[in-house]
Amino acid sequence: MPELNHQCRLSARPRGLPDDSVWELTEEEVPSEPPEGSFLVRIELLSLDPAMRGWMNDARSYIAPVQIGEVMRAGGIGEVVASRHPDFAEGDHVHGIFGAQEYTISDGRGTHRVDLDVAPAPTWLGTLGMTGMTAYFGLLDVGALAEGDTLVVSGAAGAVGSTVGQVARLKGAGRVVGIAGGSEKCAWLTEELGFDAAIDYKGEDVGRALREHAPDGIDVYFDNVGGDILDAALGRLARGARVVICGAISQYNATEAPRGPANYLSLLVNRARMEGFVVFDFAPRYSEAAHQLGEWMAAGKLHSREDVVEGGIAAFPATLLKLFAGENTGKLVLRV
Amino acid sequence: MPELNHQCRLSARPRGLPDDSVWELTEEEVPSEPPEGSFLVRIELLSLDPAMRGWMNDARSYIAPVQIGEVMRAGGIGEVVASRHPDFAEGDHVHGIFGAQEYTISDGRGTHRVDLDVAPAPTWLGTLGMTGMTAYFGLLDVGALAEGDTLVVSGAAGAVGSTVGQVARLKGAGRVVGIAGGSEKCAWLTEELGFDAAIDYKGEDVGRALREHAPDGIDVYFDNVGGDILDAALGRLARGARVVICGAISQYNATEAPRGPANYLSLLVNRARMEGFVVFDFAPRYSEAAHQLGEWMAAGKLHSREDVVEGGIAAFPATLLKLFAGENTGKLVLRV
Repeated sequence: MPELNHQCRLSARPRGLPDDSVWELTEEEVPSEPPEGSFLVRIELLSLDPAMRGWMNDARSYIAPVQIGEVMRAGGIGEVVASRHPDFAEGDHVHGIFGAQEYTISDGRGTHRVDLDVAPAPTWLGTLGMTGMTAYFGLLDVGALAEGDTLVVSGAAGAVGSTVGQVARLKGAGRVVGIAGGSEKCAWLTEELGFDAAIDYKGEDVGRALREHAPDGIDVYFDNVGGDILDAALGRLARGARVVICGAISQYNATEAPRGPANYLSLLVNRARMEGFVVFDFAPRYSEAAHQLGEWMAAGKLHSREDVVEGGIAAFPATLLKLFAGENTGKLVLRV
Repeated sequence: MPELNHQCRLSARPRGLPDDSVWELTEEEVPSEPPEGSFLVRIELLSLDPAMRGWMNDARSYIAPVQIGEVMRAGGIGEVVASRHPDFAEGDHVHGIFGAQEYTISDGRGTHRVDLDVAPAPTWLGTLGMTGMTAYFGLLDVGALAEGDTLVVSGAAGAVGSTVGQVARLKGAGRVVGIAGGSEKCAWLTEELGFDAAIDYKGEDVGRALREHAPDGIDVYFDNVGGDILDAALGRLARGARVVICGAISQYNATEAPRGPANYLSLLVNRARMEGFVVFDFAPRYSEAAHQLGEWMAAGKLHSREDVVEGGIAAFPATLLKLFAGENTGKLVLRV
């Protein structure tokens, strides 16, 4: 009997949080042999990313929406189990946009080998994967962090945010402040990751806390959340500040029009800029970032934390909700 | 009997539009002779600027608020009528922040001679004054306009907006689109100033009109108004667009919290940036802009239009309201 490939497909466009009604679990036979020039990957881990929510909307964006009936788009790590491709051999571990399923066929495009001797598989989805690239280029290229700057990052206990704060510290930021939800996350930021301060947005007035922890204003604000927290940060910008728009997780599931930042005129008063980016644009420079991040990790200066959920493809919908509920600390990953 | 200096002073902080209740008309004797090192200016023209509304608020900004009881801050042009200053002689025409009054004493700081043979006095408050500087540096330095770009400007029939569109055309923009209120203003933009298209926000759906007139998206959006029009423009950005935040006249008199741009995530999708500026930062380069703008004017390539209100200091409050009602075309100026 052939093996089965279990898949999670988008069955409807979500309104608000993507509940069970928007997913369909399907199964297909796994091909016994890949076509010439291709290889078969058994997927081991999937990356869960806030950006996924945007991919589910039928809207013009930086990438085509996932179509109804398609396997949900997802980055993953897997093992090559059969190959008819000259550059990939059985036993290789590879990273690519494999989809929310157990097996995929790849022709090698967009797929890269990863070395599990350098770092375990979950880290290849986190600090050494898109997450790390996003943090690195967003902070240093878009945010143009300079030595001595006060850096504030929201979603600071998330995959990207926790890396942003640490990279800022390693690059000589004068002050690194994280905004996260809950005292446990905040303690992790200051006690284990070396943040100078952490603000618990669930228990503190963020505006008042920013006055305390960024007394000279914010030079770089790296935003993952949008909404009230973005407004509070805009209200505390230093002259010439850079606001990096990486995401807006507080707005992705809004059923009404998203809230714009009412304090945006702070950009005028403070001669500041707010800039968005898409990490894919930095693809030609990924190796530069991976090299630097890997070096810091090897030296014990950069901590990578992954929140690995066991449960297989059937757990994909619930795991994605965990992300939007802010229940993860570090990179959220599903073991297939 | 000594001459009297009639003045318009701020008597209360406005809520919403600055009506008569926030002003006090006062008079003082004009000193018969300026102190040593100073000169007496008889003010002839005052500049009316949207930024004035911000100066009336008791809020931290790029410049100190006008205090209650103070003569309202205003740029002006006047004639030196008595001088004990080595660099300024009786009969000189000068520009400075003289205040909403008929006479002032200056020690020369922040005051510059203007040559009425080069351009008439109102133009020295408009295209060759702060207005022109704002348009020039906002468009070229902050907006980084490049040849072939699609430029959209709001408040396009205003002093800054009308200059922005013309400078863009002179600098090789591929397409220049103005947004203004009313068909007369729109006709002026396209028929006299050489805009490629004008959108009447009072009579048209701005979003739809932008799809038509900026079919490849907006490369530089120069915003003077904020609100719905900013949102419509954000919805049409081209990849790598620059949004210049020069002002937000639609929001200055809001009695509730200003509306943020709900479409700000377009910055992310389009890798775009939104940046504010304050023209005073470019003071060391004013002569560069004045030279270029003057050259274009002399060659008949750049049109300067001023809307000169007669009426003296007593008309200052009503003239300011004319600005917020969008009743001016070109630079609004009050003859004292």
